[in-house]
Amino acid sequence: MDKGAINDLTKLCIHTITTKPLEIGTAIDKFSSLGAKGITVWRDAYAQYSPRQVGEMIRNSGLEVVSLCRGGFFPAADEHKRKEAIADNKAAVEEASELGAPLVVLVCGADPRQSLETSRDQIKAGIESVLPLAEKLQIRLAIEPLHPVYADTRSAITTMKQANDMVESIESDFLGVAVDVYHVWWDEGLENEIKRCGKHDNLFAFHICDWKVPSTDILLDRGIMGEGCINISRIKKWVNQAGFDGFNEVEIFSSAYWAMDQDEYLQKIVEAYKTTVLQT
Amino acid sequence: MDKGAINDLTKLCIHTITTKPLEIGTAIDKFSSLGAKGITVWRDAYAQYSPRQVGEMIRNSGLEVVSLCRGGFFPAADEHKRKEAIADNKAAVEEASELGAPLVVLVCGADPRQSLETSRDQIKAGIESVLPLAEKLQIRLAIEPLHPVYADTRSAITTMKQANDMVESIESDFLGVAVDVYHVWWDEGLENEIKRCGKHDNLFAFHICDWKVPSTDILLDRGIMGEGCINISRIKKWVNQAGFDGFNEVEIFSSAYWAMDQDEYLQKIVEAYKTTVLQT
Repeated sequence: MDKGAINDLTKLCIHTITTKPLEIGTAIDKFSSLGAKGITVWRDAYAQYSPRQVGEMIRNSGLEVVSLCRGGFFPAADEHKRKEAIADNKAAVEEASELGAPLVVLVCGADPRQSLETSRDQIKAGIESVLPLAEKLQIRLAIEPLHPVYADTRSAITTMKQANDMVESIESDFLGVAVDVYHVWWDEGLENEIKRCGKHDNLFAFHICDWKVPSTDILLDRGIMGEGCINISRIKKWVNQAGFDGFNEVEIFSSAYWAMDQDEYLQKIVEAYKTTVLQT
Repeated sequence: MDKGAINDLTKLCIHTITTKPLEIGTAIDKFSSLGAKGITVWRDAYAQYSPRQVGEMIRNSGLEVVSLCRGGFFPAADEHKRKEAIADNKAAVEEASELGAPLVVLVCGADPRQSLETSRDQIKAGIESVLPLAEKLQIRLAIEPLHPVYADTRSAITTMKQANDMVESIESDFLGVAVDVYHVWWDEGLENEIKRCGKHDNLFAFHICDWKVPSTDILLDRGIMGEGCINISRIKKWVNQAGFDGFNEVEIFSSAYWAMDQDEYLQKIVEAYKTTVLQT
């Protein structure tokens, strides 16, 4: 691989949550200065602006809005809460449209008071309720399967197989899958399910970070690419072979990194991206 | 179900780790006084005695030794460590024989420096090295698939499917599977894989506890049956339908419960066993 290729940041996208302490305007400036070309916006990031304003700020910086995080959390034992969730997901789709984000990522949810099967039925019903609006506004939705450690409350969809099954059972060009290495790296079915996902044109997003060893907190101790046990380049190869040529989105939740100087941290991310994601 | 049945503790086994603060002699007395009929011994529990002495203490109390925990941890990037692991597993089999335990449970291990496939190959080689001794001493080995949250270091075998695949690929009457609800509850393939396991007479052990919501620590915050999100009675039904009629083994790691009065804690376990495991 030539030197140009290993410095190529044109597919680098950073999630606003990755540098959670930064105000959205600062994050946009810094990501853009680094040479990243994409940004995924978390809904909490634009509390003081409208989505439209944030969209303008991003486009003015030269960055591309890759997606909006996040919708989902459809299941609830209580019907009233399920209706609220659907309304909130419709709001997210409207916000994505105003922001200029082509995609909303779904963390689908689970309710520990009921079976995972029931939660999955409710996820399906929820997505079907939101899809007409998404199709009208031309916003795509991506189911992100979550690691089984989150099966109690965050996601009844724990594998790529389940995400593929769900997407194929609904059949809309506006519904696909977001692959996050943190959630799926352990799964022996991963390579095949990525292939299957690509074959149906359902591979909508690719998120990267690492699983630290040891991991001190299951939510807020994600690692920068290369500092954990995930073979990211292998998964990236599978994803690319399945036809995906979109952004590599850096999504890191980390109390430790959020506590450090964010410029230093971003520099680490860029270096890791070059050595771990591009150079392999 | 009649009142006798819901008070029937003849299938109740408790792991020594469940009441970690108790010295082994005290644990034996207390488990037996409660009416439990089985005990699974962790190797750290007999530091001050020989396995033979502990076996005698247990038989004198009227309890049955259900299994020895634990062997395993076969994979290592370094060959010397793999040899050490095999030697340690042979020692565990010898100890089980002296103790009078018919079964050694294997937490198979993983090494984050290598792929899970490589770790699984090393697990297979490790088990094959230990089996001749196990067969000679008539000690059975049970692969315990662990939750994918432990795939970095504790187990490259993360599902019942992988455990079944491994056991069937080795083909020894002395190798089977230990099902622990904590590790497998989230898996949509669970019912089928339990069936498959039973069909091949490979279902050797059944461990119970609960997954608390929220869970504050992924290792040391297990719940007592009924206080979390696992549908234990459903899994127990599958296990029994697959032909398993052995002990229901209570295996709880919990800093919080270890800090409380162990008599009160054991009382909670027995009540939970009656209401959550027997009465449903």
